[in-house]
Amino acid sequence: MIILGIDPGLRTTGFGVIDKQGNKLRYIASGTIKSGEGELPARLKVILRSIAEVAATYRPDCAAIEKVFVNVNPQSTLLLGQARGAAICALVDAELEVAEYTALQVKQAVTGHGKAAKEQVQEMVARLLALPGLPGSDAADALGVAICHANSHDTLALISAIGPGLSGLRMKRGRLVG
Amino acid sequence: MIILGIDPGLRTTGFGVIDKQGNKLRYIASGTIKSGEGELPARLKVILRSIAEVAATYRPDCAAIEKVFVNVNPQSTLLLGQARGAAICALVDAELEVAEYTALQVKQAVTGHGKAAKEQVQEMVARLLALPGLPGSDAADALGVAICHANSHDTLALISAIGPGLSGLRMKRGRLVG
Repeated sequence: MIILGIDPGLRTTGFGVIDKQGNKLRYIASGTIKSGEGELPARLKVILRSIAEVAATYRPDCAAIEKVFVNVNPQSTLLLGQARGAAICALVDAELEVAEYTALQVKQAVTGHGKAAKEQVQEMVARLLALPGLPGSDAADALGVAICHANSHDTLALISAIGPGLSGLRMKRGRLVG
Repeated sequence: MIILGIDPGLRTTGFGVIDKQGNKLRYIASGTIKSGEGELPARLKVILRSIAEVAATYRPDCAAIEKVFVNVNPQSTLLLGQARGAAICALVDAELEVAEYTALQVKQAVTGHGKAAKEQVQEMVARLLALPGLPGSDAADALGVAICHANSHDTLALISAIGPGLSGLRMKRGRLVG
């Protein structure tokens, strides 16, 4: 199962592609999309087209994107929202299911604790995927989202194997709901 | 020149298509896109695909979209931003130039004053486009954005005809800048 992870942002959007075979995770690709210095529509177009290209190149089976914090500055929140909307559009336009995870969930999945520093995420991502060096911060976060989704799928498959009726939980869009 | 105007929103997105021939404006189409009750990615997909369909059907030469207010609720601002991002993505993906106008600019262009009530916008849009009845609120706003862009183009063409050097102004993405 090939998973595409996205760490959205207006200035830079990180992407990471991993392959999950059983319990093994394999690194495929990662990188950073820079939206440039143009007006907003032009920048959103860069995000849209670049993620579409990544999806066309690596043909993921599913996608996951980080939930973003609301900023203290409402104008920044609005801009970040538009960038994240563009990223999600590229994914759904490629007919991918999109799961969403908070930064806390991603850190928890990658490092084991939700308050890990950025450097710890980079180091653990490098270790989990046997990378020769540290990935950049945005790419590491995107790979972290993909790893988080891979692990989440694991849990879900396990619970699914145990059978329905477990605490009345069921799967809905890659999440357990009551 | 066919102009597509968009009034973005997460729940409902208004669209309006007008044709500008010289000084005359002609109504072509308008409507409301409802994103449904699904999860965010599914709702953004509805917005993206619906606007793409409108663009493919009416083949506008350019597009204009309303700037949105930041909400007192940051979470709402983030959601609105993502919806607006999806709308802009549909427009730029159709290779359209996208101009942006504030609600104040739209009201000013349609009614002559920036603090007009919603009903006044609906009435003036109906009058300017010789509609048989009042358009819905979202469609009226979207038609208003298109009218605003049509008028703005007028002004720019006029100033452009007078020649460069006028107060040092020049055109940039459908706006006058100093």
